Amino acid sequence: MFEEKLREFEPIFYPQSIAVIGASATSIKAGSLWVMDLRSAGFPGVIYPVGSSGGRLGDLEILPNLRLVPGEVDYVIVAIPRQSVLELLDDCAAKKVKAVQFFTAGFSETDTQQGRNLEEQMLEKARRANMRIIGPNCIGVYCPEHRIPFLMGILGESGSVGFVSQSGGIATKLVTIGIARHINYSKGVSFGNGIDLDASDFLQYLAADPKTKAIGAYLEGTRDGTRLFNTMKEVARVKPLVVWKGGRTEAGAQAAMSHTGSLASSAAIWSAMLKQAGAIEVHSLEELTDTLLIFQQLGRGRGTRTAIIGGLADGGGGNSVAAGDACMENGLKVPPLSSETKQELSRLLGEVGSIFDNPVDVSQAQFRGLPALYKAVDLVARDTTSDIVLVQEDTEILLPIYSWKGLEEINDFLIELRGRQNKPLIVVLPPGSAEEKRAQIEQKLLAASIPVFCSMERAAKAIYRLNQYSCWQEAG
Amino acid sequence: MFEEKLREFEPIFYPQSIAVIGASATSIKAGSLWVMDLRSAGFPGVIYPVGSSGGRLGDLEILPNLRLVPGEVDYVIVAIPRQSVLELLDDCAAKKVKAVQFFTAGFSETDTQQGRNLEEQMLEKARRANMRIIGPNCIGVYCPEHRIPFLMGILGESGSVGFVSQSGGIATKLVTIGIARHINYSKGVSFGNGIDLDASDFLQYLAADPKTKAIGAYLEGTRDGTRLFNTMKEVARVKPLVVWKGGRTEAGAQAAMSHTGSLASSAAIWSAMLKQAGAIEVHSLEELTDTLLIFQQLGRGRGTRTAIIGGLADGGGGNSVAAGDACMENGLKVPPLSSETKQELSRLLGEVGSIFDNPVDVSQAQFRGLPALYKAVDLVARDTTSDIVLVQEDTEILLPIYSWKGLEEINDFLIELRGRQNKPLIVVLPPGSAEEKRAQIEQKLLAASIPVFCSMERAAKAIYRLNQYSCWQEAG
Repeated sequence: MFEEKLREFEPIFYPQSIAVIGASATSIKAGSLWVMDLRSAGFPGVIYPVGSSGGRLGDLEILPNLRLVPGEVDYVIVAIPRQSVLELLDDCAAKKVKAVQFFTAGFSETDTQQGRNLEEQMLEKARRANMRIIGPNCIGVYCPEHRIPFLMGILGESGSVGFVSQSGGIATKLVTIGIARHINYSKGVSFGNGIDLDASDFLQYLAADPKTKAIGAYLEGTRDGTRLFNTMKEVARVKPLVVWKGGRTEAGAQAAMSHTGSLASSAAIWSAMLKQAGAIEVHSLEELTDTLLIFQQLGRGRGTRTAIIGGLADGGGGNSVAAGDACMENGLKVPPLSSETKQELSRLLGEVGSIFDNPVDVSQAQFRGLPALYKAVDLVARDTTSDIVLVQEDTEILLPIYSWKGLEEINDFLIELRGRQNKPLIVVLPPGSAEEKRAQIEQKLLAASIPVFCSMERAAKAIYRLNQYSCWQEAG
Repeated sequence: MFEEKLREFEPIFYPQSIAVIGASATSIKAGSLWVMDLRSAGFPGVIYPVGSSGGRLGDLEILPNLRLVPGEVDYVIVAIPRQSVLELLDDCAAKKVKAVQFFTAGFSETDTQQGRNLEEQMLEKARRANMRIIGPNCIGVYCPEHRIPFLMGILGESGSVGFVSQSGGIATKLVTIGIARHINYSKGVSFGNGIDLDASDFLQYLAADPKTKAIGAYLEGTRDGTRLFNTMKEVARVKPLVVWKGGRTEAGAQAAMSHTGSLASSAAIWSAMLKQAGAIEVHSLEELTDTLLIFQQLGRGRGTRTAIIGGLADGGGGNSVAAGDACMENGLKVPPLSSETKQELSRLLGEVGSIFDNPVDVSQAQFRGLPALYKAVDLVARDTTSDIVLVQEDTEILLPIYSWKGLEEINDFLIELRGRQNKPLIVVLPPGSAEEKRAQIEQKLLAASIPVFCSMERAAKAIYRLNQYSCWQEAG
């Protein structure tokens, strides 16, 4: 599907050469930063800085005009004022550039006739020269595999999640949160006003891209709703497509108008469209990244019957109650454990201060040593009444009881348990007063492909969405 | 209202003497920890450790039996196995103890006839001797003013928020989150199975207590729903009462049964009851603490017309869209700025890359220096179209742009702005890759009575609840 997009987008995500317009040897300009960031990221192609100042940027000569570039130019990044963009597009046409990305802003998002006219003229010039435009008013492309960093030189590991975002700020957040939470991207794009290439085009490309297994999207609006709907329907059939629509309310839509020139349309219409298309709707950055994380780590849903371990030490009682509520209120099933497992747990931990139904509170293990804790968690995980195991691990509570060494052992055990059995294991690490240690544990678990969330609610929502998509996809 | 409770509960929250049953000189037992924690907290009354081992705990002699205590005993903390509690209650009666708190667990929460019988016998003995019971299966009292710490010796500053919690774990979280987020408690109690004093009693006391201005409650169930409803109705009339009911779902209710012996009842019935009583219902620990924080910091609602500053630097566009949605979807109003303010902002920051409607994106100030940023925020804050100002401050984005020194100045400005005007100012500090600096900013703002939240959603929900209560109370 959309295989033709692979060749068409090759110069965008895998350019052999990039020219950066707006570089300067004398003052720090966005264009100069772009050149330096590509350079330090290790971009394998040729980089041509272009700027009227001339001079050098490191070991690269700044050419006064794009037409003076000696070789071919696949891709152009534009960081000059809007007054000069039409002339620049003539230069691009002369150089037979394939695609032009405009960091430059000040077009239809300013809600002026002048801005809209300029966009129309840009589009006309690009069409005539068979060039594609990304933006304007955007950050453009992110492709860790091809060493194309995002704004400010941010570069994470290469992975299997693709994203499209109308907002550069949200796109940047997706990348930085991705680095923190091990969500690794195949490629991504912030396309701003999207006057030429828009969400539909990039979604089609990501659907065809063999490196991309799941797709996230932040959208504020579209100029062609029918095309977007049809695209989403086709994309969602082959890959999970998680969509956060910004501008659902009057205030949000008003901001979206000023932000990317997107026209308001009803939140209800969007929700209905996303549902019909088989896309997964989310409502915030947290939900978007949570959902992408679980798709990346688990691939597909295995069922919603959840065994919950509400606590590994003190405080497991109230947490178990809260966790049971959070899971059920977000669509998961929380079936009782088998009576055999309950009996074994009761023999192991005693009945006082424990909860063995599901949610399970194994906190009494703290008086019987770590082997008892492991045995208890293992019993719960093995129980055939569940499809997935959800463990709440509260660093702040566990640290004084087990010390850091004990806590490391507990996490080693969880990683070993996950490797030993096919049933997915998910860990909730609530924030608290031991943030540094909590972050270390999070990194360790994520690196071992155990999805980590900071609350039961967020974990439950992500698990539910994963399964919802798998069911929908299997039902065909 | 409930003034008689003040005298009745004096020995519970302000005891002159506490005996701790289950202290030991030779092994680390819960009772010994309790003694040491009271000691290091600087409890101003007399402490009597009691334990069969005899010997000493620091400079305190461990008495083998409560009856051997030389002076009067107001309050007894019990940390011995359940087999011995009836005998102990006889000792308490002989010493004319006023109140007995049972840390001891293993009663009705184990769902056995034996457990229930034991509770009945305890209650009978206590009633005959005119003593009150707190628990069993609970942590008991927290009163920073009287230097009574919570479990593990946790002790925060004394303040104006009271809490009652059926769960010790949740109560501990309330205390630790309180310390982290400057939610300062007048007093609190975890009352577990609540066989004698229960939620209603403690709520009545907190309603009468002049030190308490707002009340939070975590409840799993009640033995007397009518009394609880009537109590809540009276309490909510005089003080904001924020209630998190655990065990709303089948799984949660099942865990609540095992946790505190609470019987299930419909979530819908609870919600209706809370609404009728004028209590503010929340659904998680996050919502409970968010709501208590805003009540403590702002006291009462001033209206829901919110001016939103979606970003102080890069990324303000997408954030503004998301913030507008989050505020409106959670009940706030986001009216456009006056045209005068818009014009002044436009003159100050230029039209490209900014949003001046509300949400406002003042990120272009980053190219014009901090005075321009202050002026822009000031213009938004002064605009008479809003009752409250909500600022998103993303540490991870601001730090590389303004450096730590600039960021400190920005926060000094926000604090100065808040002091200068009567309009409440609320800051959203999203988590990210600069957690240590983020935490420092959070502490600084909280200390200056600026409520801080980690997402727009959570801030919006809290603001809405604050105003909802104020409207309800004023209409009353």
